[in-house]
Parts: sequence; C-alpha cells; structure tokens
Amino acid sequence: MADTSIPSAGPVDAAIIEDLVAASRILAQHGVLDAWGHVSIRHPKNPERYLLSRARAPALVSAEDIMEFDLNSDPVDQQGRRMFLERYIHGEAYRARPDVNAVVHSHSPTVIPFSVTGQPLKAISHIASFLANGCPCFEIRDVGLTQGLLVTNNKQGAALAKTLGDNPVALMRGHGNLVVAPDIQRAVHRALYTEVNARQLATALSFNRPITYVAPDEASDPKRLIDSWEVWKTQAMKDA
Amino acid sequence: MADTSIPSAGPVDAAIIEDLVAASRILAQHGVLDAWGHVSIRHPKNPERYLLSRARAPALVSAEDIMEFDLNSDPVDQQGRRMFLERYIHGEAYRARPDVNAVVHSHSPTVIPFSVTGQPLKAISHIASFLANGCPCFEIRDVGLTQGLLVTNNKQGAALAKTLGDNPVALMRGHGNLVVAPDIQRAVHRALYTEVNARQLATALSFNRPITYVAPDEASDPKRLIDSWEVWKTQAMKDA
Amino acid sequence: MADTSIPSAGPVDAAIIEDLVAASRILAQHGVLDAWGHVSIRHPKNPERYLLSRARAPALVSAEDIMEFDLNSDPVDQQGRRMFLERYIHGEAYRARPDVNAVVHSHSPTVIPFSVTGQPLKAISHIASFLANGCPCFEIRDVGLTQGLLVTNNKQGAALAKTLGDNPVALMRGHGNLVVAPDIQRAVHRALYTEVNARQLATALSFNRPITYVAPDEASDPKRLIDSWEVWKTQAMKDA
Amino acid sequence: MADTSIPSAGPVDAAIIEDLVAASRILAQHGVLDAWGHVSIRHPKNPERYLLSRARAPALVSAEDIMEFDLNSDPVDQQGRRMFLERYIHGEAYRARPDVNAVVHSHSPTVIPFSVTGQPLKAISHIASFLANGCPCFEIRDVGLTQGLLVTNNKQGAALAKTLGDNPVALMRGHGNLVVAPDIQRAVHRALYTEVNARQLATALSFNRPITYVAPDEASDPKRLIDSWEVWKTQAMKDA
Repeated sequence: MADTSIPSAGPVDAAIIEDLVAASRILAQHGVLDAWGHVSIRHPKNPERYLLSRARAPALVSAEDIMEFDLNSDPVDQQGRRMFLERYIHGEAYRARPDVNAVVHSHSPTVIPFSVTGQPLKAISHIASFLANGCPCFEIRDVGLTQGLLVTNNKQGAALAKTLGDNPVALMRGHGNLVVAPDIQRAVHRALYTEVNARQLATALSFNRPITYVAPDEASDPKRLIDSWEVWKTQAMKDA
Repeated sequence: MADTSIPSAGPVDAAIIEDLVAASRILAQHGVLDAWGHVSIRHPKNPERYLLSRARAPALVSAEDIMEFDLNSDPVDQQGRRMFLERYIHGEAYRARPDVNAVVHSHSPTVIPFSVTGQPLKAISHIASFLANGCPCFEIRDVGLTQGLLVTNNKQGAALAKTLGDNPVALMRGHGNLVVAPDIQRAVHRALYTEVNARQLATALSFNRPITYVAPDEASDPKRLIDSWEVWKTQAMKDA
Repeated sequence: MADTSIPSAGPVDAAIIEDLVAASRILAQHGVLDAWGHVSIRHPKNPERYLLSRARAPALVSAEDIMEFDLNSDPVDQQGRRMFLERYIHGEAYRARPDVNAVVHSHSPTVIPFSVTGQPLKAISHIASFLANGCPCFEIRDVGLTQGLLVTNNKQGAALAKTLGDNPVALMRGHGNLVVAPDIQRAVHRALYTEVNARQLATALSFNRPITYVAPDEASDPKRLIDSWEVWKTQAMKDA
Repeated sequence: MADTSIPSAGPVDAAIIEDLVAASRILAQHGVLDAWGHVSIRHPKNPERYLLSRARAPALVSAEDIMEFDLNSDPVDQQGRRMFLERYIHGEAYRARPDVNAVVHSHSPTVIPFSVTGQPLKAISHIASFLANGCPCFEIRDVGLTQGLLVTNNKQGAALAKTLGDNPVALMRGHGNLVVAPDIQRAVHRALYTEVNARQLATALSFNRPITYVAPDEASDPKRLIDSWEVWKTQAMKDA
C-alpha cells in the first residue's frame, strides 16, 4: 500500500471542487475537450499536491471523481480508482511552474493542424492575446519513441514542461496542447480561446495576405477579471 | 454621488426592454456574441440617453440588468452595478450618428480574419446587402497603444465612430466589429449576416476565381420589414 | 375582393399538409433554410394550384399557415394574411415543369459561394447524384435591375424557371437556390444534399487536385425510395 | 420461405444488443452517420452470422430492429422487414476478415473529399493513429458500372473487402467508407476519428507546409482500452 504513505493536504472547499468540475464540463461543452483530456488545480493548502479527476470523460466528471496527487503524480489515496495515464503532464507542470495553479491537457481539434506543420499559432484576436508571443511545440520523439504519442511518465512530463518554459500554452505534436494559468478560470479561458484563435487564424491564412498579429505590447492585462465564468459555468452545469 | 446628477429620461415600455434582452440572446444563440459583446438601444424618450445591460454575458442578460447611460457613457443610476468597460463604443456611436437607434459590439468570429488581413468584407449575398459598399476597419493603434485592444474611453469611442462614418458596420482590427442600425431588429439582422456573409466570402475566396459582389444598386430597401424577428426571438427566449 | 374569384381546388388530407409542414421544419433544423425560404407542393387535386405557407419563418410554420395559390401566385382566399414576396418562384416553376410537385427556395449557405464565382456545383457524392449534370446559375440582372435580388413577379419567376430548364436545382446568384422534385420527400432530400455536397466540394477543391465527380451514368435511380423521411420528420417535429 | 432455412445462431445478450444500438446512435449524434449508414457486429456465438438493424435511420435504431444474417447477407428470419440494400458490405467484410467483429459503413462527410481526389487520408493525430498507414480507396467502377455507386451484391462486397485488405478503414469513392474492428467500441472509435482526422488534415493541408504524419511506429496499442465508451453511450442514449 505504497500509496497510503503520501499524506493528504486536507479537505478542499466544495466551491473550489465545483469550479474544477465546471471547468471540465465547460471545455467539453465547447468542444475543446473530447472524450479525453483533463483539467486540474493545485491544492489550495499545499503546493506539492494537485487535484484531478479519476480517469473519466470530462463531460461526466463530478465532485466524487476528484482525486489528490503529489507532484510525482502518485495518488494520495487511490481507492482502486483508474487514473489518467497522462497525469504526469500535470505533476511536472506544477513542479516546473510555481506560478501555475491550474492545468488543462486537451486534444483541442484545430490545434492539431498547427502542431504538425510548424505553422506558428499566434494571437490574431485580443481575447487570445495570451498567445501574443506564440506557443512552442513539443516533439515527444525527442525524448524517445512512444506508442500513441502519450506522456505517461515523469521524464516525458518534465520534457514537456521544459518545452512550455514560461509560456501559457505548448502544442504537443500530433496530440493536442498543454495550457497553464494562475487560476482555473484563466486556464479555461486560455484553453477555449487557443482553439477559437486557431480556427480564426486558419481562415486568415487562407486569404494569402500579410497578417497583423496582436503585438506583445497590446496584450491584455494578464490579471484581468475573467467575467465570462458565470455564463460558461451556468450553461455547462445546466444538466449536471 | 456624481452619477445621480444625470437625470433619467424616464421609464421604458416593457416590450421595448424585452426586445433589447431578446437581441442579446439571439446573437448569443447564433454565435455572433460569445461570453462578451453587447447590444444597446437609444432611449425612446431622449436621444441623449441609451440603454445597455450591466456587465453580464449576453446569453444571461434579462430585463433587470438594463441600465441607462448618457452619451458620455456615464450611468444615470449605477446602484453599484459593474458596467461594461467598452460602453463608450455605444455612447460615441449615438453621438456621431443621429440616425442610429441601436448598436451592437461583437467578437463575431469570422469577422476577425478579415480585420487582420485587409481582405475586404463585402456582400456576396442579398441578405447582407447592407455591406454592398464594404466596411471600414478601425485600427485602434492609430489613437495610441492600448492594452487588450479595448475601447475604454470616449476618445477611443469617438475615433471608432469616425472610422464608421456613414456605414452600418465597422471592423475593429483583432477585436470584432461595431454594427449600427435605425432599430434593434435591423441591428440584429446586420450583426448576424455580417458573420454569415464573412463565412460565405471566406469559402468563395478559397475558389480563387473572380467574385461577383452584390452591387450597391442591387442592395435591399434599407427600410424593408425585418420579418425574421418572430423566429429569432421565439427560439432565443425559449429557455428564458 | 379579386382574390375570392379564384376557386379552391378543395381540401387536402391532413397527412399531406403535415408533410409539407415537416419539410419546412426539417430544412430549418438542418440549416438549409434560415429565417426565410419556403417549401411548397402542387395541389394534389388540381395541377393549377399550389400550397405554400403564409409569410412566416420555416421553423415556425404549422398547418394553419398553409395557403392555396394559383399558378399566377394569386391567393385563393387571402384572409388578410401576409404572403411571401417571392412566391412567384413557385408558381412559375409549377407552370414550366408539369413533372414537378414540390418546390423549395432557400438561402442554402454554402451554395452562395458557388453562385457568385461560377465554380461549377456538381455531385461528388452519390447521395447528391441528382447534381451529376451540375446546375445552372440564374443571373437576375439579365431580366433587369432588382432591389435585393428578389424574385417578386411572374416575369422574374418565369426567367428563373427558364434557367432551371430540366434540372432539379438552379443556383440564384448572390441569393440561394431553387430546388424542384416530383414529391416533397425528394425536394427535401435534394435541398439538403445540395448544401452538403457544396460543403464537401469546397473542401475537395481546397486540395488542388483533379476531382472525380459522380458521372451521369452513375446517378441513383431518381425513383429510389426516400427512406430517410422517417428520421428527418421525427427529429424535426419533436418540439412541434 | 427460403429464409427460414438458415438456422439462427441463437439469442444474444441484451447488453450486447444495447451496445450495438448505442453504436448507431453515437455515430449519428456525432454526425458520422447521416440518415443512412449502418453498424453491425459478428454474432458472438457463430462467426458465420452477423447482426444488423433492419433498414432504418441509425438515430432511430432500437433493439427490436436488430436482425440476424448469414455471411451471404441472407436473413435468418426476415419477418417481412425491409433490409439495407448494402448489407453485403458487412457480410463480405466478415467473410474476408476473421479478426473483425464489428463493421461500420458510413457517408462520413469529410471523408468524401479525400475519396474523390486521391489526397491520402493518413493520421495526423494520435487518436487516429489506426490510420498511420493510410487507407485504400475503393473504386466501384472497377467492378462494373453501378447506379448510385451502391454495393448491393456479394460480388461488389467482396471487391470492397479485397480493397480493404488488412486495413481498418477503406474509403469508397464518392460514397463514404468501410470501417472494421475487433469489437464494437473500437469500430465506433475508428469511424468517429476517421472523420475528425479528415477535418484536421484538410485544415493542415490548407497551410501549404510539409506535414508530420503519425509514424507507424508511433501508433497506439491497438488493444488499448476504449475508455470513451461511457461518455459516448451516455450522451447518445439520453433521449432513447
């Protein structure tokens, strides 16, 4: 029972868990998460722990599914639950980025074409201005051949976090992306508008004209209120 | 309490407010407005006032959210409510255009690629024939660097209104658009079909063939009945 | 009361009217008809009459809205109801084509780009094989300048029917299309798959490779059972 | 009563039938199946039999619609039910491929453009890595002219199965595709992500840059758990 040797950081407010559940459902409802992908938050009481659902489709996640992990992505109390194979993405992102309190991993559909072509994914819309500096692309083959391009251990997770660097988003070649933020609302915003901006940029590119990207000095205040949370959560939790 | 020094233009018929609420919800339901964007009308009793929701996602706006503003975009009676940062877009459009009684500001998704490429957005469909003369594009950088490309004061709002000129629609680079009309039904029509026409034109452009745009002398009667209001409102208010 | 001088061809089975109502709602649900557009059938008892809704959005049409017209598109008994301005499209199609018993006029969204570029719209999918010979495009300007590109009299309707010729579909430049068929089920099928085929062909064209169109000798039996009617009608009438 | 001469392989667990029904509805809900297309499974007790709905739109299929066929696609007990004309696709796939226990035939919309251009459809996303070796395209004209491009006899079905070879997916020119898998969950996964990958690849191709496809040695373990079944089935059976 090696798992039980990791002490819990303690109970978490129901409202915080509710927002984590909402985040999964919001991104599923908006088509950013498909039957896979996952959203986590750093434990509010201990930066060495994070909270993530057991392996379950994002649209179905509920409060009872949330588990606690340490930064090695070992569970505090597994209780026999099946875990996401790729939880190491989260653990290593929290380890590498003390400023990050929420992480999304998705198969964001329109991100894939950018990830396999080297076409830079940069902001053309102010709502996506967190992408004003573009986003790096993680080539998992650089850390060795993997079946299914999956990140399934800490070494691969750390390599991805290294590619991410100080950025809010890293593409993952042939796979999707990693999105990080200081809070869950901002993580959802970034995951959603990375997809929207990718769709818009694909259209802009089709015009074969020079594109005016959002300049870094035009980017939104990164601490700006995420006032869209009310509508996203209301609509996503309607049937919950 | 400086706000209270602005006298109200008086109560407004519930049916008029209901149409304003419906306008928000229609444009949200059709994907023209996302979690942001806003619709306003000029006050029916005083051209120096306009009516706009407190800061709230368009899909959630209800009659109780509607506030009254003067053309400086100062509130008549704020009551502590949070206001849209970009309400100046509305105030200055009403000031510059006495013929305008309804204003929409949106992040209309397919408008963005046109706004960052200089690709002219002109009507190819008769339902969008209000765009027969194309639409100007507002470059906010011309009035100084702004964080997030937002229009947050009267000076910027006036510059946008100046770019708009006599047109029904102005694009806003990397941001969205401004749509004006003599009434709320027409404003919704124009906001919706600017988006639809943008999608259709993007497809037409992909064929790499000469395009026959709607000629200015083929444009619809601008006073034509907006007989689509019944279905738009019925469908948008179903869950309200 | 000139209208009352046109004798009615008599009552029509409720099941036939129900299918006409369903046709409107099916095409609205599938995005072929927007807030406008209309579906009609020839009167089962008199080929000189046809049945069409009063002016109302297709998604809202119900049995009570159906009116009877002669082939001049004059109403048998108007009862003060507002009529579609473009009903002449229907009357003249029935006059020119004795084999036609159902007519759709739509703003089918992906048809517009084909209508303004001369890019031929031909079948690449067997479900759209009624388009194996392509479809002609009606240029309304050839019969004189019109405001809004609308077909609002018999002369224009007859010119459109002449462009249609023996084909099942004619595009209308900058406007939409005209779809005709021997029965209502087939008219719905053709209207729907003209749109689907247009979307698929736009994608195929983007590959810049030679395209294998469905050859005329590969076209489906035009009398083939429309076995999709059950599911289309069930889904469209769910909320009715 | 020739039909009754084919003995049944016996009753099938309700849970297995339920998954077959769910498969139809899942693929309809995700837009892979339109009003046509079909999903079958090999009979769990006799490899010479398979189970397929009577001719009915996939979104409406329920347990009572499931019929039993032999590998010639003759029904065990027709009971006057109308059968899919193209059931031979299933019978011949089961005959040619002993490893296959589930078959989907669809008009997957974005597959059509690939099928008529020769543009290779290969995996760019790890979820579609079953397409790492691409998929062959069946030209029905090679086995003689057919009306409607339909596969309506065993000879045509066998020719399609021959084109399929050892692959999980074969395109059918101007028609759709054939998807096979060792179980129903995997067949649904493959049918769905063939469509998703086609959409993503069309976008990637539009960038006019070299594309990094998923390499065959990067493909997912073909026996990997289909853990998406819970969410797909839950959502598809909600209204059933």
